[in-house]
Amino acid sequence: MAAWYRKPIAGVLFDISGVLFESGASNAIVGSVDAIKRIKESGMPVRFCTNETQKTRMNLVEKLVKLGFDVAEGEVFPPAPAMCHILRQRNLRPHLLVHPNNAPDFAGIDTKNPNCVVLGDATDFYTYENLNKAFQVLVSQDKPLLFAMGAGRFYKENDKLCLDVGPFMKALEFACDVKAEIVGKPSAAFFNTALADMGLPAEKVMMVGDDIVSDVGGAQACGMRGVQVRTGKFRPQDENHPTVKADGYVDNLAAAVDLILKHRS
Amino acid sequence: MAAWYRKPIAGVLFDISGVLFESGASNAIVGSVDAIKRIKESGMPVRFCTNETQKTRMNLVEKLVKLGFDVAEGEVFPPAPAMCHILRQRNLRPHLLVHPNNAPDFAGIDTKNPNCVVLGDATDFYTYENLNKAFQVLVSQDKPLLFAMGAGRFYKENDKLCLDVGPFMKALEFACDVKAEIVGKPSAAFFNTALADMGLPAEKVMMVGDDIVSDVGGAQACGMRGVQVRTGKFRPQDENHPTVKADGYVDNLAAAVDLILKHRS
Repeated sequence: MAAWYRKPIAGVLFDISGVLFESGASNAIVGSVDAIKRIKESGMPVRFCTNETQKTRMNLVEKLVKLGFDVAEGEVFPPAPAMCHILRQRNLRPHLLVHPNNAPDFAGIDTKNPNCVVLGDATDFYTYENLNKAFQVLVSQDKPLLFAMGAGRFYKENDKLCLDVGPFMKALEFACDVKAEIVGKPSAAFFNTALADMGLPAEKVMMVGDDIVSDVGGAQACGMRGVQVRTGKFRPQDENHPTVKADGYVDNLAAAVDLILKHRS
Repeated sequence: MAAWYRKPIAGVLFDISGVLFESGASNAIVGSVDAIKRIKESGMPVRFCTNETQKTRMNLVEKLVKLGFDVAEGEVFPPAPAMCHILRQRNLRPHLLVHPNNAPDFAGIDTKNPNCVVLGDATDFYTYENLNKAFQVLVSQDKPLLFAMGAGRFYKENDKLCLDVGPFMKALEFACDVKAEIVGKPSAAFFNTALADMGLPAEKVMMVGDDIVSDVGGAQACGMRGVQVRTGKFRPQDENHPTVKADGYVDNLAAAVDLILKHRS
């Protein structure tokens, strides 16, 4: 099988946390600022596909710009705006169990008399009390409706592995005997929004991420190539993952960009 | 099929919370103190099989006695003593994510340099920080070992449904890709301890509980009959549960005891 970078690449999706910067760190990952600059200067369309729900999209872009990245708000695809679109489209009133810093992305959404629950990466706000409140909204419904903004197992923060949205989604799924709808990676609908925005078919696009399941597996399920970086939450055993085999493994984002640009037809 | 009370009954297991008293209430459920007195006076052996891990076994018995119940410590089977037995037998050092009021039941257990996690009904102590600590112990092991004292979905406390141990077990199971060992109902090993203590075969014993899955389904899987009371966490839809069909439904514990004593051969 040809190496992932030998087949035509017309666009790239990048994960953010663990790929552009290490979660909790105040600097960009070495080489990544320059690599993003180079790939954009080459004219290759790029988008940033993230499950970040600890801050608003605007705050996330501000953070990236502060770290030196050339990134525009329209290039960043986090779950909250996609979630709001679904809520409006289906006329739903959510109970939000999200990080307060993410809440402004839901401004204008009617949350009175809720008929569904939206789960984000609430971190310290995942208290027993808050989880019970979300549970009580769900069990009060004839058909409980649970949305999870991402379904990751864990991420790395300040050198420690921390629980992501996925475990809390599983907790509420079990409590209410429901299956959550995932808005974010690895949902195909979520990846497809970014692909549509680039106007490119999946087979010409690749995803670069640190999560073997959500980033690599999710992108592959959509028909993209998926490459894992050995930064962020990467662990050596990911290269022998029982269900997902990446199209390639690279040391970091800069190494991925080097290969893409070097082999560009 | 003959009614559940028409086949010989030689002993009875009772759940405690939601059957003897409503969780959070300060009185026994009407008729239950007298019913326990009558069944014990009849000479029928009874045991109390509970997933209670918010207090020590001694505190639980004290509470029952205070409510007027004729109950001895040796008749009460909660998960913590069974859990300690397993930890000692297998030479394990637990990280305890349990309610502080339950911790004294683990006195004398070595918790230094933990190599497994024990999960109880920690209620407000299920914080993001505490869940992360338990998760970090698990992911640091080659083969993560997780024990859950019970696996209930929810219970009723002060008229509100609250998350039980099960959802938090599922959260950690998903985060670490492991399957927890359950110590408590509906584990057959747990029920069998109470049966062995009574010296009775499962087919001559019945379980009276308010949890259609843990109490009724668990007892039936062991070969006992399982009857659900319409108190505690009972909900009308339990009578049409998709996977568990109780041998009988009664309004409360007193009604169950009335039928048992009336039809006693």
